[in-house]
Amino acid sequence: MIEKSEVEKAEGGPMLKYEPVDVYDYHEGNYPGNGKIEIISKTPVTNARDLTLAYSPGVAVACKAIASDKKNLERYTNIGNTIGVISNGTRILGLGDIGMAGYPVMEGKSILFKALANVDAFPMIIPEQDPDKFIEAVEAIAPNFAGINLEDIRKPDCFYIERKLDRILPDIPVFHDDQWGTAIVTLAGVINALKVVDKKIEDVKVVMNGAGASGIAISHMLLDAGVQGKNMLSVDRHGTLFSKRGAMDKYKEELADRLNPSKNDWTLAEAINGADVLIGASSKGAFTSEMIESMNEKAIVFAIANPDPEILPSLAVKAGAAIVGTGRSDYANQINNVLGFPGIFRGTLDVRARRVTKNMKVAAANAIASMVPEDELSVNKIITTPTDPLLMPTSAAAVAKAAMDDNVARNRMTPDEVYENTVKRIEYYKATAGKLVESRKDISKVLDFL
Amino acid sequence: MIEKSEVEKAEGGPMLKYEPVDVYDYHEGNYPGNGKIEIISKTPVTNARDLTLAYSPGVAVACKAIASDKKNLERYTNIGNTIGVISNGTRILGLGDIGMAGYPVMEGKSILFKALANVDAFPMIIPEQDPDKFIEAVEAIAPNFAGINLEDIRKPDCFYIERKLDRILPDIPVFHDDQWGTAIVTLAGVINALKVVDKKIEDVKVVMNGAGASGIAISHMLLDAGVQGKNMLSVDRHGTLFSKRGAMDKYKEELADRLNPSKNDWTLAEAINGADVLIGASSKGAFTSEMIESMNEKAIVFAIANPDPEILPSLAVKAGAAIVGTGRSDYANQINNVLGFPGIFRGTLDVRARRVTKNMKVAAANAIASMVPEDELSVNKIITTPTDPLLMPTSAAAVAKAAMDDNVARNRMTPDEVYENTVKRIEYYKATAGKLVESRKDISKVLDFL
Repeated sequence: MIEKSEVEKAEGGPMLKYEPVDVYDYHEGNYPGNGKIEIISKTPVTNARDLTLAYSPGVAVACKAIASDKKNLERYTNIGNTIGVISNGTRILGLGDIGMAGYPVMEGKSILFKALANVDAFPMIIPEQDPDKFIEAVEAIAPNFAGINLEDIRKPDCFYIERKLDRILPDIPVFHDDQWGTAIVTLAGVINALKVVDKKIEDVKVVMNGAGASGIAISHMLLDAGVQGKNMLSVDRHGTLFSKRGAMDKYKEELADRLNPSKNDWTLAEAINGADVLIGASSKGAFTSEMIESMNEKAIVFAIANPDPEILPSLAVKAGAAIVGTGRSDYANQINNVLGFPGIFRGTLDVRARRVTKNMKVAAANAIASMVPEDELSVNKIITTPTDPLLMPTSAAAVAKAAMDDNVARNRMTPDEVYENTVKRIEYYKATAGKLVESRKDISKVLDFL
Repeated sequence: MIEKSEVEKAEGGPMLKYEPVDVYDYHEGNYPGNGKIEIISKTPVTNARDLTLAYSPGVAVACKAIASDKKNLERYTNIGNTIGVISNGTRILGLGDIGMAGYPVMEGKSILFKALANVDAFPMIIPEQDPDKFIEAVEAIAPNFAGINLEDIRKPDCFYIERKLDRILPDIPVFHDDQWGTAIVTLAGVINALKVVDKKIEDVKVVMNGAGASGIAISHMLLDAGVQGKNMLSVDRHGTLFSKRGAMDKYKEELADRLNPSKNDWTLAEAINGADVLIGASSKGAFTSEMIESMNEKAIVFAIANPDPEILPSLAVKAGAAIVGTGRSDYANQINNVLGFPGIFRGTLDVRARRVTKNMKVAAANAIASMVPEDELSVNKIITTPTDPLLMPTSAAAVAKAAMDDNVARNRMTPDEVYENTVKRIEYYKATAGKLVESRKDISKVLDFL
């Protein structure tokens, strides 16, 4: 027996309303520059002795130590805690190929990595259309990072780029967050939503609308987690995927082989008819009330197109959906990759994992799902929020454990140590740089010049 | 009438003594990672509203504003205050081609940029031996920076790389600090040393030993500042440079044409005989007492090889040098590029200069020299220290003025405004992130886990 969804109530609550001017204010006039990040020193730089140790001539001692044993690179530099958040700017949110104009997204990701998991993340856009040239540039700068978080790259280039970088950078994890971050969090949401409606993952009929970066990855993750291929269909703007259909590519072919071997050629509406779970990673307005009405009882609808969902939660509920999730922080049940990437990279960095394996991804999804205790699960709460203080420690520990189980970890730590360390790192950030943010306005008043 | 040099007394003063363990301690265990830098948020990341504004969906508003007017890139991101400190790792200090092992130098430079001029500087080594591939990688990532500080690149590649990047990146300044930073500060030292010994720059005989990155640049800057070509010789390990000598390259040829048209083929010792000013940017032990003894009276010796000077100051003074400078912070008269680069980039960024022109470099040298008032100049104080609070504001203002005079500035500010802004930015850093450093140890005690 499930209660009525309250998504209509959650929609547009006063705390989450914002106007363009709020966004501009947030991004501008953040002394000493604009935007959101700042690169500071962790060590004192106040006198000649500091300069001697930090720079010439003292620094030569640290360089020599690294030259004689390259393990010292992570001992005497910040590289071990630093990742690159890198895009080619070709698919920024739902805004398309806007190049450098997507930079605020990368900076936003950088500060979430820092505040939520104390990972240092340098934001970059390499506005290069040619995937191979983009790969070359990332490869050239990769030694400066302990991990690469790829971001907002159009398909199918994103698949090619991630797979090739993963291959040519065997020692550091390469993770395209729009694929796997979104897929991991979506799977976490599906796991919990199925508990609420009391259905089994092996039994449910799933329709995945959208065969872009996240759509393809979500399909793979659902299969990895127990959805039966015969119960799932992947749909793009031309209808169901099937082999040699036309408008296919090798990544769609891979999926079509597993999901639709009998080559059913259906429209989205036809595919949805009788489905238990409908996931959209497509575009605003892709779902109609009629489609939702045709679903099985206790239907689950995740409409995660950004910034505007495939259907408004209020409409989906009216059309009979039992549970609705979106990608937005201003509705209930936010299926947002921010729940995933900070903890995933924290766990990966702590054990120095060489890559992010399938098991690490499934472990992350289960960890994220576990954050809402079963007795608190409801149609309005199938997933936790990014500010849940135990989310990142839990997912970091689960990811680290899976990395060790898969033998891709170069540094052995117990999952409990990773958990404890993550808690401490987050506390430390709050007590240091996080506190600084709060005091900035007061400081600017004291200095009387802003 | 000049007093006796006290360099022997300055040598190895207790405050500046350090052991390898001090360097290791400075670089290690700087929670949450190691090394010296950290990438933090300037904006709050504490609740769902912050996440909405910083990231999805709110951030789309900032992206759209930039997509419709690219001037907004600097308004809503930190790019306008961010430079890349980038090396190929081929000539790290005096340690040679050690690749990524040079990273502590780049991090050191980053924190000096921040603490001394509030410039955000991201350290990178792109360990690529092929100059053209290195250039391609820097070009690919350049849109993320408002300036490029090149660092520790072997000659003659450094000349080719700097000139080509300067050409293909017409909108952002490209500055190889080992050439121009060192040259600017050396010129500042020469200007003041000549005042102390009461000689005129037009009259002095100069020997520049070393035709690497800094040696070639110092020669050009001294010529730009008034040294007569007929009074200067450039010397490398094969003796005086002259056209078609052998072991020449196009950059040495350029200089030989101006300095030694009569093709005198002399050893270093022969060239030094009777010189007023001897500058070494070469290697440890390159100068002997006999060479210094053969110089003109009131000789000026700058032995700036790093980390070990061409001759110990004590020996040079004993051999008759009136003024001795080195590149080290633990002797008097430190000729170190740290006196230059923070203020040079601060001024360059404030007026959004498209490049760093010759006049901007000479202006920087004069500004740095001016920091020691004429009545305070002495054989032991020909140059100020990097922690002089007015140094960076003064040089930033001078550089900005020259940029405007040369019509390479895209943003008009008065030199006074640049000066005031630089003072404020430095104060602000001290009051915020600089203060944080001091409190780190206390915080770690409070949190009871370090």
